Amino acid sequence: MTVAKEIHGLCVRAKAASRAMRKLTHSAKDAALEEIASALESAKEAIYAANAEDVEAAKAAGLSPAMVDRLTLTESRFKTMVAGVREVMHLPDPVGHRIWRRARPSGIVIDKVREPLGVIAVVFESRPNVFVDTAALCLKTSNAIILRGGKEALRSNKALAAAVRAGLAASEVPEDAVQLVTTTEHSAVSELVRAVGLVDVAIPRGGERLIRAMCEAALIPVLKHYKGVCHVYVDEGADLKMAIRILDNSKVQRPSACNAAECLLIHEAVAERFLPMVHKWADKKGVALHFGGVEGGEVDWGREFLGLELNVGVVKDVKAAIAHINEYGSGHSDAIVTANPQHAKRFQREVDSAAVYWNCSTRFTDGAEFGMGAEIGISTDKLHARGPMGLEELTTYKYVVHGSPVTGTVRK
Amino acid sequence: MTVAKEIHGLCVRAKAASRAMRKLTHSAKDAALEEIASALESAKEAIYAANAEDVEAAKAAGLSPAMVDRLTLTESRFKTMVAGVREVMHLPDPVGHRIWRRARPSGIVIDKVREPLGVIAVVFESRPNVFVDTAALCLKTSNAIILRGGKEALRSNKALAAAVRAGLAASEVPEDAVQLVTTTEHSAVSELVRAVGLVDVAIPRGGERLIRAMCEAALIPVLKHYKGVCHVYVDEGADLKMAIRILDNSKVQRPSACNAAECLLIHEAVAERFLPMVHKWADKKGVALHFGGVEGGEVDWGREFLGLELNVGVVKDVKAAIAHINEYGSGHSDAIVTANPQHAKRFQREVDSAAVYWNCSTRFTDGAEFGMGAEIGISTDKLHARGPMGLEELTTYKYVVHGSPVTGTVRK
Repeated sequence: MTVAKEIHGLCVRAKAASRAMRKLTHSAKDAALEEIASALESAKEAIYAANAEDVEAAKAAGLSPAMVDRLTLTESRFKTMVAGVREVMHLPDPVGHRIWRRARPSGIVIDKVREPLGVIAVVFESRPNVFVDTAALCLKTSNAIILRGGKEALRSNKALAAAVRAGLAASEVPEDAVQLVTTTEHSAVSELVRAVGLVDVAIPRGGERLIRAMCEAALIPVLKHYKGVCHVYVDEGADLKMAIRILDNSKVQRPSACNAAECLLIHEAVAERFLPMVHKWADKKGVALHFGGVEGGEVDWGREFLGLELNVGVVKDVKAAIAHINEYGSGHSDAIVTANPQHAKRFQREVDSAAVYWNCSTRFTDGAEFGMGAEIGISTDKLHARGPMGLEELTTYKYVVHGSPVTGTVRK
Repeated sequence: MTVAKEIHGLCVRAKAASRAMRKLTHSAKDAALEEIASALESAKEAIYAANAEDVEAAKAAGLSPAMVDRLTLTESRFKTMVAGVREVMHLPDPVGHRIWRRARPSGIVIDKVREPLGVIAVVFESRPNVFVDTAALCLKTSNAIILRGGKEALRSNKALAAAVRAGLAASEVPEDAVQLVTTTEHSAVSELVRAVGLVDVAIPRGGERLIRAMCEAALIPVLKHYKGVCHVYVDEGADLKMAIRILDNSKVQRPSACNAAECLLIHEAVAERFLPMVHKWADKKGVALHFGGVEGGEVDWGREFLGLELNVGVVKDVKAAIAHINEYGSGHSDAIVTANPQHAKRFQREVDSAAVYWNCSTRFTDGAEFGMGAEIGISTDKLHARGPMGLEELTTYKYVVHGSPVTGTVRK
């Protein structure tokens, strides 16, 4: 069978499953999530065994220790993954929620109602837990899902898929609600993102290269973030001790996260006092500083380090800081530390990013911190979803309209 | 100058204008819209003269009477266009509106706030009034706009652009908030939809071929509807006189509209009584009927006639009607005529379309009928906007977050 045919078959089955899923009640979906959690627990040994094979092969193939670590399903990661399914189960289901009702002068009554998107394709790398996390979020919102993982995790993903589908088989949800792409051909991804009318949206969870390739091939919408180049700007008159605390949290707490800071901007009026504090902090925490200064220097300003490195620049004022961030940032998360409410307001209005912080760490950009319960990813797009994407962002809406014998026709 | 350079220049200027537009107050934008309306009135003679040249050239080139008609800017169309600008001025501005506020246990306070999208590219055909209509909607929402019209309307569009920009010059809004692409090279459109980081969304307003070409080339999101294949389903036990009224309104009132019905489905239990009524109506209104029957026959079910033709099929029950619509429809607008609330509910839940009607004409799918005031188009996509797109659909949102000295850092 060709890759095109194989993917087309998966998509057709997913679409059929998604149609059937429109009839599911909240409790039927929650029961299915519990079945999945139990099935994963029952299949634990088989999943560990498959994962151990993947890990061994990865080591033999000379993959980096970081990649091997991401691939490894430890006991604690497994438990967190299963607990995650039960957490999603307990979240409120947005499907069917009425956003608004309008009685129009024409006599019709319009309900704007939340609906599943339909079929979601998720392409991910390395971490096998993504398979289960995203499947749970999609099921909860009555979406069918097609998953494509990295080839180094194929055995693990197959074992997880078998367990999840065994759980579904014991529920009212069709098994084809969750499908794994098992071909390792690269063209499988382009087939998925060109399946107009079958797949409603693609969500990449991986590096910038994967995402760019998907967008280049795509005929369907792709929800994504290319990268997270987040800034902390320390304004004149800022509480400098607070600034260090916020900088520390933004940079050091989890440097590999997309919401970690990659660039510090300092108002020139406080640079002389603040820079020694920054040096002291950087020495203590092992952060390498790259200085650009007022004129920009040789610094690669748009760089996403994802590690203990930080660009530092001195700017003339809040206006220059905003211009710098809009020029070099990635529209993800940016913070101002200031005691001046006018400066904060201006920064938060003019910086064109998903989340703009006043006296807060950029690390708050996260579904759980925002009260969404769970997230499928973070979007730096502006269409449909911006920032953390939770359950609501996995839905669309429809207009449900009711007329009457005297109101059913358009007059003019 | 190459087309690529020319379009890149337009996009860079549009992005700069969109940044400046973030600082505009509601009243500054409304004042600019009034300036535009006045400037159009002042430039009326020049616009008519340019349009007359376009119309003459179109006739000489042998364009169809329908196309020549669409191109012609009559006195009444001109008045409607200018009045439209003032109507948009009086609509509420969604930008800056707080969608929700959440105080989180971590101590931060999050505001989800409506924001402009940034730069919108609109590609349209024939009707020059689209230039002014869409420019007004985008300005009202603080978006910069780049417009590309059909080459047969280039003189008209240039005259309209000059008037609109003269209006802007007398206001606080930068002139580059509205720009017209004047090159007639085809590649201009692909350059626009590949301008990642400069153009935030493209909206085609034209035929299916244009839209498919844009999606094929696009690296940025495209908001669109390919076509409108809308259905009226007449259920068993329906009020058949009401069914004829709704069918008549859906099919005949404006057959060229995308929300006009293209297919009638009839429950087999009422076919014998209803079909003679349908024939009588069709004869009277000059509607050509194409019969498919239970087995499907030779009918091209997915056909969008945009004229006085109608596919007719007899189905076994509401379930079969739903399956038919999901298979052959375009996800636009579909109606059920029934006295049975269970059937209506099932139809409205399971039909996967932007608008689902119970005892209503499909013609209601329209920004004004839905209370949005004006629309830039109708989307059959499910991401970002579905159904009529008004001012709100021309916005995104951002998260504006406020911390304090004790709450500014993520703990865990």
